[in-house]
Amino acid sequence: MNSIRNALLADLYGLTMSACYFENRMVAPATFSLYIRKYGPHRSYYVSAGIDEVLDFLERFQYLDEELDFLQSTGLFSTDFLNHLEKLRFTGELFAIPEGRLFFKDEPILEITAPIMEAQLVETFVINAVNLQVSIASKAARCNHAAGGKSLVDFSLRRTQGTDAGMKVARASFIAGFGATSNVLAGKLYSIPIAGTMAHSFVLSFEEEIEAFRAFARTFPESTVLLIDTYDTVSGAKKAARVGREMLERGHKLKGVRLDSGDTAKLSKEVRRILDEAGLSEVIIFASGGFDEFEIEEVLSKGARIDAFGVGTKMGVSADAPYNDIAYKLVEYDGRPVLKLSRAKKTLVNQKQVFRVTRDGKMTGDTIGVRTEALEGAPLLECMMRNGKRLAALEPLPRIRERFLAEFSSLAPPNKAIVNPEIYPVHLSPMLEAAQKRTIREVKKRELGESS
Amino acid sequence: MNSIRNALLADLYGLTMSACYFENRMVAPATFSLYIRKYGPHRSYYVSAGIDEVLDFLERFQYLDEELDFLQSTGLFSTDFLNHLEKLRFTGELFAIPEGRLFFKDEPILEITAPIMEAQLVETFVINAVNLQVSIASKAARCNHAAGGKSLVDFSLRRTQGTDAGMKVARASFIAGFGATSNVLAGKLYSIPIAGTMAHSFVLSFEEEIEAFRAFARTFPESTVLLIDTYDTVSGAKKAARVGREMLERGHKLKGVRLDSGDTAKLSKEVRRILDEAGLSEVIIFASGGFDEFEIEEVLSKGARIDAFGVGTKMGVSADAPYNDIAYKLVEYDGRPVLKLSRAKKTLVNQKQVFRVTRDGKMTGDTIGVRTEALEGAPLLECMMRNGKRLAALEPLPRIRERFLAEFSSLAPPNKAIVNPEIYPVHLSPMLEAAQKRTIREVKKRELGESS
Repeated sequence: MNSIRNALLADLYGLTMSACYFENRMVAPATFSLYIRKYGPHRSYYVSAGIDEVLDFLERFQYLDEELDFLQSTGLFSTDFLNHLEKLRFTGELFAIPEGRLFFKDEPILEITAPIMEAQLVETFVINAVNLQVSIASKAARCNHAAGGKSLVDFSLRRTQGTDAGMKVARASFIAGFGATSNVLAGKLYSIPIAGTMAHSFVLSFEEEIEAFRAFARTFPESTVLLIDTYDTVSGAKKAARVGREMLERGHKLKGVRLDSGDTAKLSKEVRRILDEAGLSEVIIFASGGFDEFEIEEVLSKGARIDAFGVGTKMGVSADAPYNDIAYKLVEYDGRPVLKLSRAKKTLVNQKQVFRVTRDGKMTGDTIGVRTEALEGAPLLECMMRNGKRLAALEPLPRIRERFLAEFSSLAPPNKAIVNPEIYPVHLSPMLEAAQKRTIREVKKRELGESS
Repeated sequence: MNSIRNALLADLYGLTMSACYFENRMVAPATFSLYIRKYGPHRSYYVSAGIDEVLDFLERFQYLDEELDFLQSTGLFSTDFLNHLEKLRFTGELFAIPEGRLFFKDEPILEITAPIMEAQLVETFVINAVNLQVSIASKAARCNHAAGGKSLVDFSLRRTQGTDAGMKVARASFIAGFGATSNVLAGKLYSIPIAGTMAHSFVLSFEEEIEAFRAFARTFPESTVLLIDTYDTVSGAKKAARVGREMLERGHKLKGVRLDSGDTAKLSKEVRRILDEAGLSEVIIFASGGFDEFEIEEVLSKGARIDAFGVGTKMGVSADAPYNDIAYKLVEYDGRPVLKLSRAKKTLVNQKQVFRVTRDGKMTGDTIGVRTEALEGAPLLECMMRNGKRLAALEPLPRIRERFLAEFSSLAPPNKAIVNPEIYPVHLSPMLEAAQKRTIREVKKRELGESS
């Protein structure tokens, strides 16, 4: 609905490779794994997100006439191949870790098994959809953890990387514990609570700051949050307190004030005192301007009297980790385990499953095994699509959010530290380890002429 | 066409402020300036981009019935106000720096003048559209400068922040000198040349690497670029040379090989030697994997024998500067200059113009002045919309690209250094400087009780 779900939203090489598969009658099933190869800065966990969009894309996947016309115009493809594309649909199977669950480096977020051409043609979109929402949900989870119970509002829309990102950031941050978004369209489409205050421009458009405050309070007698730093935060707080008293006299309540600049830890204490002395102790202090998990942790450690944060740009672009080292890799073709040789970048062969052991409500470790193994722990990857048909029902966002909050509380505090967290234990099963070694040995012998 | 252009794609506060403007009958014209307040890391110039999308959005701006129904359901707005929104269109004027031109810190990229409600309601979208394309065009310009004439292909789609960003990155990087994109849909919608090679999965799906190479060469006898690092780059290069010779014997030509990992500077020399010794000196070497301007400059300084680069993720998310300190600020209301007081963040009052002086084909300095001034130099901001109607015709991308390349060549080399560039001189006109000081003095007196 909100993002482009077009079969041409893909890298050209998917089509050229497919043309070659077509000519060589290569139709055997292939399994691709999507996983993160390396933790980003201070990252020690990821939150699954974006799976629903992938399912939707796969179910609708097809090339329309005007798209085929364009492909023909490139001169790269045979008519036979284009006729084949016209009839092509996604007929494969998808296993994935449900949205809102935690996962770790090397663990497959999803695995797709389908005739190789189908699995290849959807690559670009699948990575794009999952990568962004995982980045944002994970960054937002870190913000929520740092805030330790204070409410968070997504303020990022103006500086997200495009409009599709703006929608996905609202969705992913809500999954990861945010309470509301400023994005009105996300409120409409995803039923996320919406919130907002006022801009400096509003204050500037009145002759005097206090007149701006009074006008807003008249229009919104129950939900006014006054932005008090347009000229000077302390002087703004005093004017807000005056307007707050006037509202009380009319039987209304000022909801809050917002700080958007300066030393917010220090200013918040001063503003709190001004409000309290005016008998406005229920008026909340809302802070915005450059916050992410690092700044939230810092101001709270300085004893800031802040009740809620507007978290914008840095969360909305995951500024310290704007992309993941995420890859969609072929791990099995026609029943044969395969991998790319690389010292730095590990691919795990075979169709896989991840088993999570939880003891007394605490996650103690994961094991990545072969899909058919029965290991200790609860399997994470669920079959969500078979024969191109979605099995998993659409889940309401609040349910995904609850799943996240419950699982996050079972992760040990050292694994969620904002700076230099401990790495959560993830093992390979002996069976997967053996298959891995065997495949590497065979490949080296065949391609590099090395003896085992 | 490719991004969401919905009036609800906005921060809630635009609507709450507007409700208050409506109640207070505030309909006077307001001018907002969009500008970058601070240079990002190693940034010393920006490339204008995203203006076309803004014009398109403004021209179509309106609230549809289902959107008004949603706003009503929030309980925040009066029926009178919603009826007013139903009839609301953007009727204002827009001045902007044409896409592809260079601009600098503090210079307005665009200025919107309209009844305050209209100018406020479009804020979020306007920032979102311009911020991303400017970020990417500027990052891509840096890549293109570092590449010093080698061709660049946008490979970023899989890891851009969402699908809208994927499209805009293809567009903005092409404007800034890239030669092609892997994004097929961008090829179709924007007529940008498309390019692609093959993935590791393609090589893995064959029993042997050389068979994968042979199959691809048969399907694409004129446009094959072989990916040679699946198992080992040097051994892959030897197999590619063998296939290249076989192609020659059939009267075809191997186009290139691609390196995607390892020490590409060193490997490229070895691969060049292998290809040359096989009589394949026309086969180009294409490199990808983690490149942006910093890595391109580094490998070329080591004498890498690379003919073209696939530039992906780091450019596609502007990884070292994933957002700009960009703001849309009210600078004039009802003929009165206004500004927010802030030590760190400067707002320049009034409707403005930027004058660029060029001598002997070299840009020597810009002056930001009041819109009505006639200063030395060519004015940059052009009136592109009046009474809500677009004046500027849609420009073909190649023309915008040429404008960029021409202007970029007139910027002095020290201003375009990849690391620690010199700052380009930007002055304020005496008239603007005086208006600025007068406004600050008046605001301080009025709001803070300071005497002048």
